[in-house]
Amino acid sequence: MNTKKIKVALLGVGTVGTGVYKLIQRRADVMVRTIGAQMEVSKILVHNLNKQREGIDASLLTDNWQEIVNDPEIQIVVEVMGGIEPARTMILEALHAGKHVVTANKDLLAAHGKELLDAAEEKHCDLLFEAAVAGGIPIIRPLKQCLAGNEIDEVIGIVNGTTNYILTKMFEENMSFEEALAKATELGYAEADPTADVEGLDAGRKVAIMASIAFHSRVVFDDVHTEGITKITSDDIAYAKEFDSVIKLLGVAHNTEGGIEVGVYPMLLNKEHPLASVRDSFNAVFVHGDAVDDAMFYGRGAGELPTASAVMGDIIDVARNIEYGCNGRISCTCYRETPIKKFDEIENKFFLRMQVKNQPGVLASIATVFGNHGVSIARVVQKHIKGDQAELVIVTDKVREDYLKNALEQLRDSENIFEISSVIREY
Amino acid sequence: MNTKKIKVALLGVGTVGTGVYKLIQRRADVMVRTIGAQMEVSKILVHNLNKQREGIDASLLTDNWQEIVNDPEIQIVVEVMGGIEPARTMILEALHAGKHVVTANKDLLAAHGKELLDAAEEKHCDLLFEAAVAGGIPIIRPLKQCLAGNEIDEVIGIVNGTTNYILTKMFEENMSFEEALAKATELGYAEADPTADVEGLDAGRKVAIMASIAFHSRVVFDDVHTEGITKITSDDIAYAKEFDSVIKLLGVAHNTEGGIEVGVYPMLLNKEHPLASVRDSFNAVFVHGDAVDDAMFYGRGAGELPTASAVMGDIIDVARNIEYGCNGRISCTCYRETPIKKFDEIENKFFLRMQVKNQPGVLASIATVFGNHGVSIARVVQKHIKGDQAELVIVTDKVREDYLKNALEQLRDSENIFEISSVIREY
Repeated sequence: MNTKKIKVALLGVGTVGTGVYKLIQRRADVMVRTIGAQMEVSKILVHNLNKQREGIDASLLTDNWQEIVNDPEIQIVVEVMGGIEPARTMILEALHAGKHVVTANKDLLAAHGKELLDAAEEKHCDLLFEAAVAGGIPIIRPLKQCLAGNEIDEVIGIVNGTTNYILTKMFEENMSFEEALAKATELGYAEADPTADVEGLDAGRKVAIMASIAFHSRVVFDDVHTEGITKITSDDIAYAKEFDSVIKLLGVAHNTEGGIEVGVYPMLLNKEHPLASVRDSFNAVFVHGDAVDDAMFYGRGAGELPTASAVMGDIIDVARNIEYGCNGRISCTCYRETPIKKFDEIENKFFLRMQVKNQPGVLASIATVFGNHGVSIARVVQKHIKGDQAELVIVTDKVREDYLKNALEQLRDSENIFEISSVIREY
Repeated sequence: MNTKKIKVALLGVGTVGTGVYKLIQRRADVMVRTIGAQMEVSKILVHNLNKQREGIDASLLTDNWQEIVNDPEIQIVVEVMGGIEPARTMILEALHAGKHVVTANKDLLAAHGKELLDAAEEKHCDLLFEAAVAGGIPIIRPLKQCLAGNEIDEVIGIVNGTTNYILTKMFEENMSFEEALAKATELGYAEADPTADVEGLDAGRKVAIMASIAFHSRVVFDDVHTEGITKITSDDIAYAKEFDSVIKLLGVAHNTEGGIEVGVYPMLLNKEHPLASVRDSFNAVFVHGDAVDDAMFYGRGAGELPTASAVMGDIIDVARNIEYGCNGRISCTCYRETPIKKFDEIENKFFLRMQVKNQPGVLASIATVFGNHGVSIARVVQKHIKGDQAELVIVTDKVREDYLKNALEQLRDSENIFEISSVIREY
């Protein structure tokens, strides 16, 4: 039998690329049954032809992009090198050449998604990116297809495995942030420079992509307010436990009447929330829609094979579309232009931990400052008194970000307050 | 502008049908943007034309199936009446007439899935059924598409909301089974005759469908061994807590070298397992694949709008396929014929609770019986001694179902044993 072939080029063969290469080999026999064609990696673009790459057929390697983009037999280009350039230019050139593209590149999509999707649409090509958000977890297809009958108003995700691992260790094994980060680095979860993870930038890119799809309106990384977990202490964790909560780094997106609210920050989350039990380096995305109610998608947010699993799902879908002549079947779904709400105007509850003078009238003076700034207090706990110092924990009702900021500024100047130790939002 | 119309007929307008009708109205403006066409419910098949149906346009109702199947303008038939007949005949006739079908009918698919999918394939029609398993939770599309690059070896689901609600109430509020069932009935979670829920039949149909898709090999309801939760007592729940576990009714499917193992039964599940925190009437499906590792899908397994959400996702997908001329793009994926393993040959761990004589030598005699039948003991707890009676809890290692059954049969005859109170599997 003369089985049809679908030729694939990989751009990059790092962790994810190697996974994709392996899966295409591993599933070779199955492909014929599922998509009616054989899939074949015919070229792999690399920087350095001479680097040893175990398990990869060296004859497939090339450092010449033109060899791929000009090869009429290559129908699918899989971009797994990451970063903005040259990935952006190559994807655009591939699409212009009529090739379908599968990418795992969140940085690129969160910044230039519209440009790429427009190029795909113009050429009736597929541009799929299930792996760009939450690694192996199916989330893009569920949002774009399964939940297409919903008006989605909330997407919250634990979409960075490194920080979830760190927070889990802090919570379950009482490690400090520094100890937990060291452990994450040792295990290869954290990179040498962990900034993008621990400062919430990686999560910010993912939440921008998810919000765009869920709310049918473009959200870019620059729209996302990001805060990291470096300031979370063991004391905060202890209070979280006392409040039957955990602390999680959440990517939060809401579609409200006043516009799209989007940010990444650590939050106290009641332990009965489905996201609260997501431990270690696992990821999960929680979605609320007007029809489906609550839904959650859980799994591995990173790693060679989990991420390759998502890429493979996309490749197989492209191959099916080729079979049926319907590429471009699901393209950009951002048909709205909802404004992004100014971060100052977003309302959150806050957990505030501060070191104050242990004397009568101090709480009253603090409460007055809050009252003057429109901050209403839900709960107060006073503790750990040593000498003239008390630790005061205040949980506020929902309040605008700028109101709280102004109140805290005034409190920082107060002689009654030694230090404002923690400002953490509460879900 | 002359917008294209896609006409839909509903077969049945009960809970789910009403939800679908509402969603199609609610999303009317959006449809044009997402699928480039207007969607319109043009006919609704009902038994009784005279019954009052609030919110439903009475002029759409018909009790004549021929009016629908012979209407060339109707492109999509949505079967939401349930049961085997006349649903089976109508779906087959609709497919033969070249209409696409969306159904939420698990009973039908778990028994006659192959016949229906074959008919769809023959006519290049879509037959989609996301709502048939776990209601609003996206699971069919993730399994068929997102995880298509995986060899999936395990699917475990909490796929019956009624029993999960009952078990949650028993666990969290110390209710008896009877009390919790009464509460579930009061809230409308349990039907007047709760047999299909509490005996695991409903879950059995869903696990048959999921196993077929995950393992690419047909599993029908008759292949599924089902046990319910009626024998679970407060004492069992108390031991589960002591063992840091919960008790959940699980649909369990494994793809092993010896064939497909599939069953539904209550199981002790360690509280760190992601399924353990699925509470109340929520559902969740846990999947393990060789690439994606662990993944879980969580949400509402039933209810008017959650189930309608899944149906709508399917309808929109069919409409997109109509737009792109690629209906039938994803049809039956059962290209294997893996045998179903005999239930007797499946291995499980067991939690056994029994009332025994409180005297020396009894444990030794019981252990001997187990040993003779190849049952190895992992843990023993002895408790609640009153007079000459002790409660003995034994947790076994993994053992074949028939070995355990034989051992228990012999023990039941023993004069040392008053009663074997509980036999519950442990995950």
